Amino acid sequence: MVINLINYSKFQKNIINYDNRGMTLENDLNITNSFYLDKDIAIVYKKPTPVKVVKQISGKITNAYFESPSTTDYNGIYKGYYIDFEAKETTSKTSFPIKNIHSHQIDHMRKVINHGGICFIIIRFTKQNETYLLFAKDFFSFINDNKRKSLPYLFFKEKAYLIKEKLAPRIDYINIIENFGGIK
Amino acid sequence: MVINLINYSKFQKNIINYDNRGMTLENDLNITNSFYLDKDIAIVYKKPTPVKVVKQISGKITNAYFESPSTTDYNGIYKGYYIDFEAKETTSKTSFPIKNIHSHQIDHMRKVINHGGICFIIIRFTKQNETYLLFAKDFFSFINDNKRKSLPYLFFKEKAYLIKEKLAPRIDYINIIENFGGIK
Repeated sequence: MVINLINYSKFQKNIINYDNRGMTLENDLNITNSFYLDKDIAIVYKKPTPVKVVKQISGKITNAYFESPSTTDYNGIYKGYYIDFEAKETTSKTSFPIKNIHSHQIDHMRKVINHGGICFIIIRFTKQNETYLLFAKDFFSFINDNKRKSLPYLFFKEKAYLIKEKLAPRIDYINIIENFGGIK
Repeated sequence: MVINLINYSKFQKNIINYDNRGMTLENDLNITNSFYLDKDIAIVYKKPTPVKVVKQISGKITNAYFESPSTTDYNGIYKGYYIDFEAKETTSKTSFPIKNIHSHQIDHMRKVINHGGICFIIIRFTKQNETYLLFAKDFFSFINDNKRKSLPYLFFKEKAYLIKEKLAPRIDYINIIENFGGIK
């Protein structure tokens, strides 16, 4: 009976995984980017988190810590266009706190737009299980016009693009870019 | 007298630094990319080396090791163009061993070209103290036509672009791209 219970629990765990509950946005984006790469649609990678190595003994790092990144986490190329984005989850039902994006990341996004790149943020509201793509220009319009410290959920409903989850590609953000990203 | 000697040694060290002897190509490129960023010429970063974390105790990494990167080390945007490159030094006077660029990095470069990116390698012959930019298309022409395991120094003289070192930007690769990179 114990064995059966263990097996059932394993089985349940698998169901949950396939069903995507509990999958992080980062995981979903990694799978999506692998799909784009395999199908030769786009070349996008997550940048490794920078690590400050304090001590290293013959190849093995024994003392180190994560540093905060100076740019967004993802960049790459689609149809010759430079694309660049940040991805974040929030457990809030009503808004996305802007402080979740570092000020140097915001500076970076501003520069990318000025240099003609396609720049956006992907935000997942985990409670609603909804993932939105918000173009950086709309993000900047908001923070220029508002003193609020968070982007309301309703703002996403109005200005961002809901990315419906599919089997493959799971989070098809390239489809949004193709249709609304100013691709010629 | 001892104090004077110490001061002189410090002074000498500074001279050597300004003079660029002993500066690695990576250092030079970091300084160059900072210059481009400050002057709003291009946005290019070196990707952090990926680190596989085995053990972490309350934020401190106590067991980890460096992983080999799946892409080139540098990418970014210039005038709306996606740019992507790898940078390597060699102590050989006569050739650059191709095995210094991983096969998955070569695959990545091939994809970048196919997607319309500007892709190249920057190679420094440390003995000659010469730094060359070789466009990926010329690199691929060579490896398609040859069975050699290294790119001869004379090939660089013929097909690559010598980047003369300056005070700022130190390694002005953007100048080569502007003139020979197919920028419209």
